[in-house]
Amino acid sequence: RCNKSGNGDRAEVGTVLKLFADRGYISLEQADEEVPMRGVSCWYAPLGAELKRNLLEKWWDSVVNSRAQVFGVNTPSCTLDRGTGAELVHVKKIDTKNMREILEQNDLSSEQLIQQVNALLQRSLSLRTDFVQGALEQFVPSSELVNRRLPFGLAETGLCFLVPSNGSGWPAAFTQTSLVWFCSPRTSSQWLDYWTRQRLQWWKKFALCPSDFSSSDIPEKDLDPPASRGVKICYNFPWGPEPLEILWSRGDAELLQAHNGVHSKLQCRDGRKSVPHVVTVTANMDRAVMAFLFNSLQHQTREDSKRKLHQRKVLKLHPVLTPMKVAVDIGRGSTMELRQVCEGLLQEFLDSKISTWPGYLETMPTSLEQLTARYDEMGVLFTTVINENTLENGLLQVRSRDTTIRETMHISEIKDFLYRYISAAQQD
Amino acid sequence: RCNKSGNGDRAEVGTVLKLFADRGYISLEQADEEVPMRGVSCWYAPLGAELKRNLLEKWWDSVVNSRAQVFGVNTPSCTLDRGTGAELVHVKKIDTKNMREILEQNDLSSEQLIQQVNALLQRSLSLRTDFVQGALEQFVPSSELVNRRLPFGLAETGLCFLVPSNGSGWPAAFTQTSLVWFCSPRTSSQWLDYWTRQRLQWWKKFALCPSDFSSSDIPEKDLDPPASRGVKICYNFPWGPEPLEILWSRGDAELLQAHNGVHSKLQCRDGRKSVPHVVTVTANMDRAVMAFLFNSLQHQTREDSKRKLHQRKVLKLHPVLTPMKVAVDIGRGSTMELRQVCEGLLQEFLDSKISTWPGYLETMPTSLEQLTARYDEMGVLFTTVINENTLENGLLQVRSRDTTIRETMHISEIKDFLYRYISAAQQD
Repeated sequence: RCNKSGNGDRAEVGTVLKLFADRGYISLEQADEEVPMRGVSCWYAPLGAELKRNLLEKWWDSVVNSRAQVFGVNTPSCTLDRGTGAELVHVKKIDTKNMREILEQNDLSSEQLIQQVNALLQRSLSLRTDFVQGALEQFVPSSELVNRRLPFGLAETGLCFLVPSNGSGWPAAFTQTSLVWFCSPRTSSQWLDYWTRQRLQWWKKFALCPSDFSSSDIPEKDLDPPASRGVKICYNFPWGPEPLEILWSRGDAELLQAHNGVHSKLQCRDGRKSVPHVVTVTANMDRAVMAFLFNSLQHQTREDSKRKLHQRKVLKLHPVLTPMKVAVDIGRGSTMELRQVCEGLLQEFLDSKISTWPGYLETMPTSLEQLTARYDEMGVLFTTVINENTLENGLLQVRSRDTTIRETMHISEIKDFLYRYISAAQQD
Repeated sequence: RCNKSGNGDRAEVGTVLKLFADRGYISLEQADEEVPMRGVSCWYAPLGAELKRNLLEKWWDSVVNSRAQVFGVNTPSCTLDRGTGAELVHVKKIDTKNMREILEQNDLSSEQLIQQVNALLQRSLSLRTDFVQGALEQFVPSSELVNRRLPFGLAETGLCFLVPSNGSGWPAAFTQTSLVWFCSPRTSSQWLDYWTRQRLQWWKKFALCPSDFSSSDIPEKDLDPPASRGVKICYNFPWGPEPLEILWSRGDAELLQAHNGVHSKLQCRDGRKSVPHVVTVTANMDRAVMAFLFNSLQHQTREDSKRKLHQRKVLKLHPVLTPMKVAVDIGRGSTMELRQVCEGLLQEFLDSKISTWPGYLETMPTSLEQLTARYDEMGVLFTTVINENTLENGLLQVRSRDTTIRETMHISEIKDFLYRYISAAQQD
């Protein structure tokens, strides 16, 4: 089932990105077309925004909600620069009004100018490049919540900032998920293995082609001290592999540094007392959105009853991730009456938290074939068409994206059918 | 039921903030104590982080998920400055490495220096102060999704940045929710009223003391052009009212500006064709967290069986908002065995998405009275205690935060009991 589109050709990648834009996932108007390939925040149109929300929710379910010993925290995105690390001070938020006021003082010598600009830089805030520092600083009150028993973890998701290392571009932002896991020194290597397994499983679980997701140890020469081991989970994009999630075993040096080396505040128990070691798990959810989009797009060829070949493009996103579970459309019949039925059905779906595409709002005349082709490309799981038949006997047709089969169902049954289908997919 | 704590005295506010910190909502170690009062991101400890998540989720459910015509989008937090508005350019993200390189060139005259710093400022990115500009730029592709029929809306939540207007402080970040609603010119005033009603209802729905939430028209002299009307929803904090959510009726000027005045791209239909008017609804979710915390803290006095008076502090957060629905604790009996039962029960709760406090991890000897007092202050809805009785006959005690009643229940029934209770609260 892995006959995906695209093989790395830049033009082909462009065609695929254009498809994602046409189908409401990303918006390419405001930025150059390569932004979505860089693993930074791009313009997400409604379906892309919903896909990203779904991914973030599933990550949180898997790492936080289903575990007793992982707690969410929320740390400020900018902090006073306390010289805690070189990485942190690269990107700064500066009040440009102040800066301009300095620059407009014409009578300053260049030394005075440098002094004042430097003072402003010092007064400015640093924007975080990851959530690790915040979690380290939250360690003491959090460890008290669990009575200083190891292991436990602190999780956070949100915006982080970066300056592209290739020097090419602008500082940019991306959405990161982060788990900072505190454990006893002797178990840190096992925990790194545990989290690698867990996380890789999670990525593969939602994949159409799981083999495109893989993990590999980071070679010793690429380790950033104080990290003693690192693992990368990569996705094999058409243009090459890119890291989605990175795991580090980092020892206790940074934790000690964040607390001025005061061992007594940090000691926890897991059998014996010790200052915990830190394992971090951080993923880039903007890259994750693109990975699942590329992973799910499938080219299918099928023969119809007249032996004609048809090309079909389907975005086979996992039922849990796909932004729209069902579309409600109008077939033949009195538009006014059918519209009312559509609105009622849509509201029923929304009340059951089934995300629904209001296809009946699109009043352009399209053939049913064009319609299903478009919904396949959008990844909509089921399509329902309300027509004059429905008004007569309550029956409607439900088409499945994955089987292409059309089933006839009574309008009173469809909500429960969808609800059961989605719940079953959640359980897997 | 509105006998809340605190009456505006700064020392009393400090005591309440300290309580929120002690009970795992906020962290006051890293910042000065007034940060949580300023409506900016502060350090959220686990319970505060979860409360904020719950609020954001409920906002999204109410504004996006339950409506056919509101779509989520996700726009970049920083954009190249295109001179679109004075507000936007106040806060800038600057690559400090480049800045330092400029400052370290000793041989520059002050004119050259000013020139280079200015050039760097121009090349820097602007950080958004709200989501409105992003939604306006996303208007054209989004309107095509709904076949250019009005009304419809674009929603987004996340970090925005601000420079405090009182000039006192640092640039800061806060979490904003934003709805940008496009409607026909003749209906914009009605829609402003509609959304004001909807939003005020939402705030009051989750409040213990609804009267502390109120809406008022913004006086004409305070209107920012091009806004023609504005409404504020405020919370009456002990130190005075502060705005939680602001609604503006803004006309079409900004939409036209964002699309270079090209009317034809913007025209939509609602009966007749027109360039839509814009109504915006933006809330500050960091301030919302503090509003619900202050709103929910209740002082109760009760008499015990010996006619002694007891003071009780209860954080009566709405069941839907409260971060921990249930705590699992250990009573008398063999710790090893009881612990296993606790772990099993906790996992059962988590699997049903019932957020659970692992009280049994706290092995310090505390009296049951101290325990319930602490859980009341945390706002934990139900407390279960597993003891040697449970091992014998499967029965355990469940105590309710709101009624203080202890019920005996079989261990096999409690999950369904909690699930039903929470589901019922969601429906209200």
